[in-house]
Amino acid sequence: MTATTLDELCINTLRFLAVDAVQKANSGHPGAPMGMAVMAYVLWDRFLKHNPDDPVWSDRDRFILSAGHASAMLYALLYLTGYDLSLEEIKRFRQWGSKTPGHPEYGLVPGVEVTTGPLGQGFANGVGMAIAERWLAEHYNRSGHEITNHYTYAIVSDGDLMEGVSSEAASLAGTLKLGKLIYLYDDNDISIEGDTDITFTENVAQRFQAYGWHVVGPIDGMDIASVDSAIRMAQAENSRPSLIICKTIIGYGSPNKAGTGSAHGEPLGEDEVRLAKECLGWHYKEPFTVPRQVLAHFRQARECGQHYQEEWQARLEAYRHAYPGESRQLEEDLSGDLPQGWDSDLAGLFQSEEGPITTRGASGRVMNAISSRVHALVGGSADLAPSTKTILRDKGHYGFDNYRGHNLHFGVREHAMGAIASGLALHRGIIPYTATFLIFYDYMRPSVRLAALMGLRVIYIFTHDSVGLGEDGPTHQPVEQLAGLRSVPNLVVLRPADATETVEAWKIALTRRQGPTALVFTRQKLSLLDRTALAPASGVQRGGYILWQAAASPDVILIGTGSELHIALEAGKLLKERGIAARVVSLPSWELFDAQPKDYRNSVLPLGLQARVSIEAAVTLGWERYVGSEGIAIGLDRFGTSAPGKVLYEHFGLTAERMADEAMRLLQSRKQ
Amino acid sequence: MTATTLDELCINTLRFLAVDAVQKANSGHPGAPMGMAVMAYVLWDRFLKHNPDDPVWSDRDRFILSAGHASAMLYALLYLTGYDLSLEEIKRFRQWGSKTPGHPEYGLVPGVEVTTGPLGQGFANGVGMAIAERWLAEHYNRSGHEITNHYTYAIVSDGDLMEGVSSEAASLAGTLKLGKLIYLYDDNDISIEGDTDITFTENVAQRFQAYGWHVVGPIDGMDIASVDSAIRMAQAENSRPSLIICKTIIGYGSPNKAGTGSAHGEPLGEDEVRLAKECLGWHYKEPFTVPRQVLAHFRQARECGQHYQEEWQARLEAYRHAYPGESRQLEEDLSGDLPQGWDSDLAGLFQSEEGPITTRGASGRVMNAISSRVHALVGGSADLAPSTKTILRDKGHYGFDNYRGHNLHFGVREHAMGAIASGLALHRGIIPYTATFLIFYDYMRPSVRLAALMGLRVIYIFTHDSVGLGEDGPTHQPVEQLAGLRSVPNLVVLRPADATETVEAWKIALTRRQGPTALVFTRQKLSLLDRTALAPASGVQRGGYILWQAAASPDVILIGTGSELHIALEAGKLLKERGIAARVVSLPSWELFDAQPKDYRNSVLPLGLQARVSIEAAVTLGWERYVGSEGIAIGLDRFGTSAPGKVLYEHFGLTAERMADEAMRLLQSRKQ
Repeated sequence: MTATTLDELCINTLRFLAVDAVQKANSGHPGAPMGMAVMAYVLWDRFLKHNPDDPVWSDRDRFILSAGHASAMLYALLYLTGYDLSLEEIKRFRQWGSKTPGHPEYGLVPGVEVTTGPLGQGFANGVGMAIAERWLAEHYNRSGHEITNHYTYAIVSDGDLMEGVSSEAASLAGTLKLGKLIYLYDDNDISIEGDTDITFTENVAQRFQAYGWHVVGPIDGMDIASVDSAIRMAQAENSRPSLIICKTIIGYGSPNKAGTGSAHGEPLGEDEVRLAKECLGWHYKEPFTVPRQVLAHFRQARECGQHYQEEWQARLEAYRHAYPGESRQLEEDLSGDLPQGWDSDLAGLFQSEEGPITTRGASGRVMNAISSRVHALVGGSADLAPSTKTILRDKGHYGFDNYRGHNLHFGVREHAMGAIASGLALHRGIIPYTATFLIFYDYMRPSVRLAALMGLRVIYIFTHDSVGLGEDGPTHQPVEQLAGLRSVPNLVVLRPADATETVEAWKIALTRRQGPTALVFTRQKLSLLDRTALAPASGVQRGGYILWQAAASPDVILIGTGSELHIALEAGKLLKERGIAARVVSLPSWELFDAQPKDYRNSVLPLGLQARVSIEAAVTLGWERYVGSEGIAIGLDRFGTSAPGKVLYEHFGLTAERMADEAMRLLQSRKQ
Repeated sequence: MTATTLDELCINTLRFLAVDAVQKANSGHPGAPMGMAVMAYVLWDRFLKHNPDDPVWSDRDRFILSAGHASAMLYALLYLTGYDLSLEEIKRFRQWGSKTPGHPEYGLVPGVEVTTGPLGQGFANGVGMAIAERWLAEHYNRSGHEITNHYTYAIVSDGDLMEGVSSEAASLAGTLKLGKLIYLYDDNDISIEGDTDITFTENVAQRFQAYGWHVVGPIDGMDIASVDSAIRMAQAENSRPSLIICKTIIGYGSPNKAGTGSAHGEPLGEDEVRLAKECLGWHYKEPFTVPRQVLAHFRQARECGQHYQEEWQARLEAYRHAYPGESRQLEEDLSGDLPQGWDSDLAGLFQSEEGPITTRGASGRVMNAISSRVHALVGGSADLAPSTKTILRDKGHYGFDNYRGHNLHFGVREHAMGAIASGLALHRGIIPYTATFLIFYDYMRPSVRLAALMGLRVIYIFTHDSVGLGEDGPTHQPVEQLAGLRSVPNLVVLRPADATETVEAWKIALTRRQGPTALVFTRQKLSLLDRTALAPASGVQRGGYILWQAAASPDVILIGTGSELHIALEAGKLLKERGIAARVVSLPSWELFDAQPKDYRNSVLPLGLQARVSIEAAVTLGWERYVGSEGIAIGLDRFGTSAPGKVLYEHFGLTAERMADEAMRLLQSRKQ
């Protein structure tokens, strides 16, 4: 058997493992694997630096299947090259409890670098990985000591390139000259509704050249030698990301479905599977057949990977010896652990004599205090840094002329910012944060969701958090975005009420490693809550706490978050003057509060005390959970309007007077 | 005074009305108007076909200020050309109750074609307007009878072009060869974080050429003759949209701030305003000065506009005479009114003997029945039409070779789809719908929000509405998207439970004219609810209704929506067998139910009946509103997983057995 024939056999094994998995599941996407198999094979067989026995080795090449619907092919690659994924799992494709879900899932499947499926995301995630790679390289590599030096590869599809998020990420990657980013574009001219000509006649090569990319091809993406030489050309280009345009045929080999949309999203059918196998000269009758020589060939990846990693380990040892300080810092960065005393500058950051300060401003000071000790804190804003207060002082600006900078500039590209932050977190070595106005969370929701699903440590800073931002008007005033954040599983949302709560919120965000955190800050100034007369801010750690009460047995509970906590407190004082004892509860994080033991929750919001009024300058959706059926939720179930913030609070009834009145009305109605 | 001088005076009037308005409000964006004034002036003075006395005349050119932060300049143009917007309003810029909000608001300000501010949206809205213009022209224009023939212009900024949504829309506009779309790009090299070089080094001209656009320039965007000739070149190009790249200087005229980010988002300050006026030779001391000759010049727009419209009216009369049927249909389309009997095919669409059918499938049949009578129904999907079941049969496919088609193909571009749909609705003549999977609502949220804010009639179809979609896994299974939809003010959300409720949901969507409607459908099949034994489906019109009850005085209420209503009904039957009388409530629309009179709501969910259990395959956020503090909300407060849909329902406890058990537990705990 010649080498070429073995290559073909390997490629067909990839194809038919995927096709058989889809057929057995009676669900899935056979067409993409059949068309992409050559690209994937050549990349994995001849270029990808990885070690199946240590899928998290830090200097491995990253591989992203942005076209996540081709998952079955990725699982085939992982099984064949020796990752901890058995053939049995491939037979359980898309079944309950399997390690082979419909789309690749990070954390569930060893070797899957990122959860993909929603198109465009993987494309942008890769840009984040490449940013992280350069950042680590610039910080730690020394002459003769290349500790971080790897490629980020992806296979991307027509759909990926149509989604706006990929345009955003591509433009930024071009600006940043990320030369070690290499994407193979599966250009098969087919989308679900038909030929891509109906929607996608653009000149992709020209578009990417405009972004500053190095474009290779179009090449024959189903020809081994062409793919091989294209990847070599891409590797040879150091100062631009590369897009290799690979012309392929979706469903290649299927005589009746190849080149059509019907090959995309459903099993070929038993008959067509048989015909496709005949057509491609696959003579094995049993589904899921892996010819012995194919497995032996693919499994060389283990030996190869071990060799790569051992070489690297030796380099690391030498580096540790030559640069002990740097290597310790590198290992800290890669571990994601926080250094001892990382938060020791925070205790005294805000003194009680501090005047009114915006929580965005407080956050900026907290970040800078943290950043001086936590080297891995890196992030930026979608062109709003002066407003979001997220610049890390003396930490430099990341750019192609300074890959050491800690301050990233994303441009007006919230969606790519979100996806890139996930890429930074996935790569490891960086604790990423992003920043924009809360209203623009809407632009980045798909990426935030995926970060929550993957359980990534990403910190999202959202400022200008309510109509309190004032004159910019309803297009910029969030009302439903808080509810939106709270609806996402595994996302912790914190809306601190002043600088002292802001400190606590940041501590939570930094120490939370199993999922993202959204920090929600004001544009407007807020007085410091006087902790000598009020409960300590550490209550934030429990999501909600009793801030103050007029008596040990209060008549009514007033609940607030963020800037409106001050209104609740003022209402409590007003009620006291009126002879009514209120308890004021600060509830900066619903998720953290809901996770407390029942006893604690009942101690803050006792079952026997159902007279409750909440206030938040946002839609009231969900507040019934805390005020109960009998309580009153003061909020804003409408869009805002353009006027100074204080005027809006008055007009919308977000006032202490109103809150006190509502509380009294409530108490009176309960007496009747 | 030479003509040139008058032009310059007019341009400076625009600049300083904007600058003075920002200064007086002490809030806003002076830099953009100062840089854009020439572009805007030349376009409005020499090209824009509009009639200030009839801002909704159907054949006017459309003008979009996609860079909505330059609102003060647009207000100046509207005031000066004679729209119903006074100088006093400009002096009340950004104040409560004014007609001059921080960003342009459609419906509030006469002459504002679209609400803008969130970047990229206006760019994509314009593509929708241009699509509508061509659609109407192709349907109704006849030789010698040009009833629809106008341009869509926009001024777009660096930020607009960085946002992914504009890339999506631009690529589609190029594919569709929308030759009457003309965008002026305010290329000022400045973004908030600094020079655009830090994030945006792409070659914009090349990028747009790649999309199939006609690119003019870069030209000197502050030179009248250059802008004039560029617009003429753009008009001369009929088969490609045009982008005119105008090099400008942000804050032009301000000696200390011009060309810097500090001119962008805050008032210049009194001193700098004075210096800028000196610098540009503006000798009027009073703020808000409008030289008499300037006003006289601008106000010629009224006479001009009247002339345009009279000419057009004459053409329309001739057309009415020559083509009475077509003109009636055109006027119906433009009015947005539904023809008599528009829903007369719906009554018998689903017979009780109908087998199980997906609600997406039922929706497809309903749409087609409506479409045969409602000519203006036009829309499409983001490359998922075969799955969303949204093809209108025999209605043709919209493309550059067939602008008459009713079926749009958006490509994998949900965000642009949303914004384009708003453009279609804003243009008038079309009742637009969009379609994608519910999970991809996340990609289009900013556009949906703006449609709700503008009160546009847009119908969003979202299918694959829960973990019931099965094997595609958590990346594709919505859990928090329903809560997200429900959180948006002025958006009506409907999740029908079967084909009969689907008919009602579509009726609501079609007749609702003051805001968008989201229709949420299943992938999986559902039995028809047997209306001979159950309440009629017309209850959907009230948002929620009693579907069935075991006794006139039930012990417990079971509430469900969509596919889970069947589970609730089954649970009700189970409880009956166990001797417990349940009421089953269908609650397809929270918004409609909440808008019912209190009496009705109490009749469905009586205050005295607090034993309540709800079920919905989604996060439970907000369900406390209906089940109360004592009730139980069965849902899915986690991400889904990849497995067949039925298996997931079992594993996640979304079953009748569970619901019946929870109801019994609830009744027992209440007895104690």
